[in-house]
Amino acid sequence: MKTHLECIPCFFSQALGTARLAGADPDQQRKTLDELARMLPGFSFCVSPPEHTQHMYRSIIEITENVDPFKTIKEKSNRLALGVYDSLKDRVFAAGDPLREAVELAILGNIIDFGLRKSLDVDRELERIVSGSASGLDSRRRPIFHYREFESALRGASSVLYLGDNAGEVVFDRLLIEEIKRSYPDKRLVYAVRESPIINDALEADARECGLDRVVAIISSGSRAPGTILDQCTEEFKNLFSTVDMIISKGQGNYETLSEEGGPIFFLFMAKCTVVARHLGVSLEDIVLLDNSHNTGGS
Amino acid sequence: MKTHLECIPCFFSQALGTARLAGADPDQQRKTLDELARMLPGFSFCVSPPEHTQHMYRSIIEITENVDPFKTIKEKSNRLALGVYDSLKDRVFAAGDPLREAVELAILGNIIDFGLRKSLDVDRELERIVSGSASGLDSRRRPIFHYREFESALRGASSVLYLGDNAGEVVFDRLLIEEIKRSYPDKRLVYAVRESPIINDALEADARECGLDRVVAIISSGSRAPGTILDQCTEEFKNLFSTVDMIISKGQGNYETLSEEGGPIFFLFMAKCTVVARHLGVSLEDIVLLDNSHNTGGS
Repeated sequence: MKTHLECIPCFFSQALGTARLAGADPDQQRKTLDELARMLPGFSFCVSPPEHTQHMYRSIIEITENVDPFKTIKEKSNRLALGVYDSLKDRVFAAGDPLREAVELAILGNIIDFGLRKSLDVDRELERIVSGSASGLDSRRRPIFHYREFESALRGASSVLYLGDNAGEVVFDRLLIEEIKRSYPDKRLVYAVRESPIINDALEADARECGLDRVVAIISSGSRAPGTILDQCTEEFKNLFSTVDMIISKGQGNYETLSEEGGPIFFLFMAKCTVVARHLGVSLEDIVLLDNSHNTGGS
Repeated sequence: MKTHLECIPCFFSQALGTARLAGADPDQQRKTLDELARMLPGFSFCVSPPEHTQHMYRSIIEITENVDPFKTIKEKSNRLALGVYDSLKDRVFAAGDPLREAVELAILGNIIDFGLRKSLDVDRELERIVSGSASGLDSRRRPIFHYREFESALRGASSVLYLGDNAGEVVFDRLLIEEIKRSYPDKRLVYAVRESPIINDALEADARECGLDRVVAIISSGSRAPGTILDQCTEEFKNLFSTVDMIISKGQGNYETLSEEGGPIFFLFMAKCTVVARHLGVSLEDIVLLDNSHNTGGS
């Protein structure tokens, strides 16, 4: 998905919110905005938003002189999400269609995203997901939910590449991966994380903290952006990406960076900005499970 | 009121929205954003937001090569507001306290503001005001409403300076001014407008179109910003500003630029942004009638 003009005010809003979450003082917050302003006239609108925001986030790292400003937030998200793992696992087991329940939970877990939100109470969001029917799964709209296609693709696939998104959310990915492995023990599954710290995106350490290393092979995609920019990716990852039978892509950043790629991709995310929502014809916070072969959105 | 860091993302949002309303094509919209980005590192946070936005709006004028991009919108707002003048006049007459009704209507008229809104259906907003109780006067909160002080100051004042804000809204100002003149025929009243086109702010031509020239003396403040920047103002205006017994200041832009001035100012506006709302401890779209001598907001 290409960057839109409406993304620009949002980049400034993200820059300020993220600098604050990263503990930047007012001078550092101002520097973050000024640095983004200096970059803006050079921006191309032919690339995806994460191609730009990666530079903004790196400037926050430079300005705060903190190589991983969201480390504490990520650790807390992992810990809190692990705290609800058992009850969510029970819910998957108890569901009439455990795979569907795990898919929906994996998408709900995508709420743990500090990129577009100025504040996020992970504890409260997890509580809402755990409490389920009242405010979670049952109440959210699913205007695009290609579950039949997802299930069918999964049944036929020998190899699956799962692209992670955020720390904490990894626990929800683990539930889905465990359910896939329980139903289809013979699949070859690989879980990909970001190469280096970017917002609260999951790194290998987060995947391990969430116990994913005991369930699936973990690799770095090589991407240093809040998404998957193939040009940045390792040869190993690109090889997997182009040869696996199915790709499960989590999060809006992965959608933004991969929506114009071909391939057997299923995008699982919560729509978090008006540009993406409009692009897909959905509403904010809608649950999306999009079979890429049905992707008719504009650029 | 000083510019806050949160104002910066909003400036970019305003720049894009205003460029679009002004009919800028996508290249011109991009140029507007780039131009604002080029200005940002030089911004002082010791001045009010309109000190900055005036430059942004002027860059839209330069980029679109249109000296008054909101001319049509202003003319339409004047025409539509004049269309409801009679029914609003009847409402003032019929009210138990006609002055209070006129004050409240004058503040509701402040909704006709294209600065912070990306779209505004003036017709619909006027309809809501005319329909009154359902969605207009009675339902809006008035957390700051120094009407007793306003009435008392008005009673004691020999001279009143009224600072206008937007085109269309002038008709609502006219209702209040006519009510003041009816109750107190001996007051000396002057109505001030902006010096040159800036967003949909009222110029002398708008005041005349709305029939205000038949009711009150009209002068230009000299300000070319979407507010009243005293350094830009004419000697005549500054002299009036510092000697009149009472100043009735309409709109958020006039509040932002004058909130730190002393003097017998009453600010009448609808809170339209979170920074101003927080500054005053009110909610978005609340009705505000603030006696400046009670102004305890931070900077």
